Amino acid sequence: MRTQVVIIGSGPSGLLLGQLLTHAGIDNVILDRASKDHILGRVRAGVLEEGTVRLMDEARSGARMYAEGLPHDGVSLAFDGRDHRIDLFGLTDGKRVLIYGQTELTRDLMGCRETTGASTVYEAVNVTPHDFDGDAPYVTYEKGGSTHRIECDFIAGCDGSHGVSRRAVPEKAIRTFEKVYPFGWLGILADVPPVSPELVYANHPRGFALCSMRSMSRSRYYIQCSRDEKLEEWDDQRFWDELRRRLPAHHAERVVTGPSFEKSIAPLRSFVAEPMRFHRLFLVGDAAHIVPPTGAKGLNLAASDVHYLYEGLLEHYEDRSNAGLDAYSARALSRVWKAVRFSWWMTTMMHRFPDTSDFDQKIQEAELDYLTHSRAAATALAENYVGLPF
Amino acid sequence: MRTQVVIIGSGPSGLLLGQLLTHAGIDNVILDRASKDHILGRVRAGVLEEGTVRLMDEARSGARMYAEGLPHDGVSLAFDGRDHRIDLFGLTDGKRVLIYGQTELTRDLMGCRETTGASTVYEAVNVTPHDFDGDAPYVTYEKGGSTHRIECDFIAGCDGSHGVSRRAVPEKAIRTFEKVYPFGWLGILADVPPVSPELVYANHPRGFALCSMRSMSRSRYYIQCSRDEKLEEWDDQRFWDELRRRLPAHHAERVVTGPSFEKSIAPLRSFVAEPMRFHRLFLVGDAAHIVPPTGAKGLNLAASDVHYLYEGLLEHYEDRSNAGLDAYSARALSRVWKAVRFSWWMTTMMHRFPDTSDFDQKIQEAELDYLTHSRAAATALAENYVGLPF
Repeated sequence: MRTQVVIIGSGPSGLLLGQLLTHAGIDNVILDRASKDHILGRVRAGVLEEGTVRLMDEARSGARMYAEGLPHDGVSLAFDGRDHRIDLFGLTDGKRVLIYGQTELTRDLMGCRETTGASTVYEAVNVTPHDFDGDAPYVTYEKGGSTHRIECDFIAGCDGSHGVSRRAVPEKAIRTFEKVYPFGWLGILADVPPVSPELVYANHPRGFALCSMRSMSRSRYYIQCSRDEKLEEWDDQRFWDELRRRLPAHHAERVVTGPSFEKSIAPLRSFVAEPMRFHRLFLVGDAAHIVPPTGAKGLNLAASDVHYLYEGLLEHYEDRSNAGLDAYSARALSRVWKAVRFSWWMTTMMHRFPDTSDFDQKIQEAELDYLTHSRAAATALAENYVGLPF
Repeated sequence: MRTQVVIIGSGPSGLLLGQLLTHAGIDNVILDRASKDHILGRVRAGVLEEGTVRLMDEARSGARMYAEGLPHDGVSLAFDGRDHRIDLFGLTDGKRVLIYGQTELTRDLMGCRETTGASTVYEAVNVTPHDFDGDAPYVTYEKGGSTHRIECDFIAGCDGSHGVSRRAVPEKAIRTFEKVYPFGWLGILADVPPVSPELVYANHPRGFALCSMRSMSRSRYYIQCSRDEKLEEWDDQRFWDELRRRLPAHHAERVVTGPSFEKSIAPLRSFVAEPMRFHRLFLVGDAAHIVPPTGAKGLNLAASDVHYLYEGLLEHYEDRSNAGLDAYSARALSRVWKAVRFSWWMTTMMHRFPDTSDFDQKIQEAELDYLTHSRAAATALAENYVGLPF
């Protein structure tokens, strides 16, 4: 079998790339070791930058996103018993974010892909990229008792941080940068109205808290916890009590509680692998970089990688130029590091670290206080939050 | 003897307050344990914010500062082999800083004070504030073999971090916040033209460097060093060599060397004492807070304290209102913490820490890269550098 681009991974970045390529007439196959149901069972964040929204549009997969997504024009920073709204829309000349769950976005992309008839192989075992350092790469996988081989021009590694794509690169060809944060996020989903129509990021001496949502009747709340927190020690009541303690009074008293139907602990880390291209293998999204969820940059960063790679592939096939592909790694990484910095900064400013001293706590509050008084500083936050330009 | 305000300390903050009070007809005496020559022998930074310049003007002591000071409309950030100018003037609607040595500013204020005939006692031994928690405070000191006593309405503690004023406050009445940085600055003064007409702050994997100046023929250079560095191990040649290594090539090749006539190592720390008022005793400048020299906020922060205290005293004597005095601590501290945050941020972004990882170094470069590409972020730096409004 032969195709132009093999995409490893059927998450949002692989699907988005696949849709863009398909509509441009570039043949592609998506391979994923998981089942469709498993992929759709993953719970992920859902704050979309405008660039990501545009890309969904370009992939002709945005209809439901536009219909059901909640445009947010602002975000609140809570600290020291008060809170302050950052006017994203006003500070960025009319940009906003769209609240739309990553699971829904994945579902939409899968649906559209099925409509186009493009090929996806789920539950592909032992997916392995081969010879991507030469000019005739191919990918093998096992399914239905036999081994399959797909020859291709390029391989897009969209299979996340623990996928095979980055592991297939010789260790000495890759440089990694990592920071593991000494805490995690304990998150719940519950069918209760959110405390506020916009997100609230709360800095509190007891630790960070985030009030988020999937819709106006489904809330997503997080509280900072230790990395070795035991999930079974957190019944719903304890979670709601702790959440309330970390919010300013006017928010705390508006928390509507209800049974959670999802509860999990996520560790926080920053990770970047350089470069992101290895001749005919391109790493995309989580396969190349991980950010902590503070600021919701993960999915959006995957989208900008997809944008750069798609442009490069388009130039290759339509204009017979490799300039875009040659520039892929540098272009993607320049934006990646800015988002890694932003996520690191938001995380550092909003969380309580084990070694946070009284001085550090005052610095956090001074920074938040400065952000609420300086248009320039608030604009810097806002322009990153809505997404730096591709 | 009796006066209205006793000012402890004849550094720039004490002198500035003294001049403002004298011109407003408020009687004051300055006491300093050091000699005039000793005070004028101290070498300190000299980047004046516009607010500080205005205050010198208001104190009618600005003539030479205006004539000899060098207005700077920008500052450079060097990193990753390149450098980028922050257009202070353009980003802040026409604000700038003035390069004028603190020693010269002190000399000017002393000269003006002598002209007005206001009383200053140098080499005052065992200066001690008394009864400032009541309504009849007084200050004692020894000189010429006898003990002197000055009764007053208020005491202004302008005697620095190691002075008697803060020590006179019961420990339990004061809360302190401190961060000691794990490095120092090795600085030299030399009569050579500066490498650039504006200041250059350099981030380098070998450590921070700063190209500063007193005039177009007198340069002040600093390099980050360890806290326990031995001064005697740094002859001029070693200093110049290390400085060049930390600068981008186009600056390094323009370094003009010459014999240094001052060389010293300064530790870096952030320190804040809260509150800044104890009934009739007011802490001003270094007596209440210390910032690392990165960003040159120390003297300027002392000036804003002086401004708030002067306004409070003026209201007390002219309008019979204590509102300004009652608000002094909160108003001063609000600005102090913003400047403490800025100095901490500049220090953290520009220096190599013993535990700086490859990730941290990339974050520093990403932050600098972002600053050079975002008008909002550059404006945030610029508005702090020229000084937030009083």
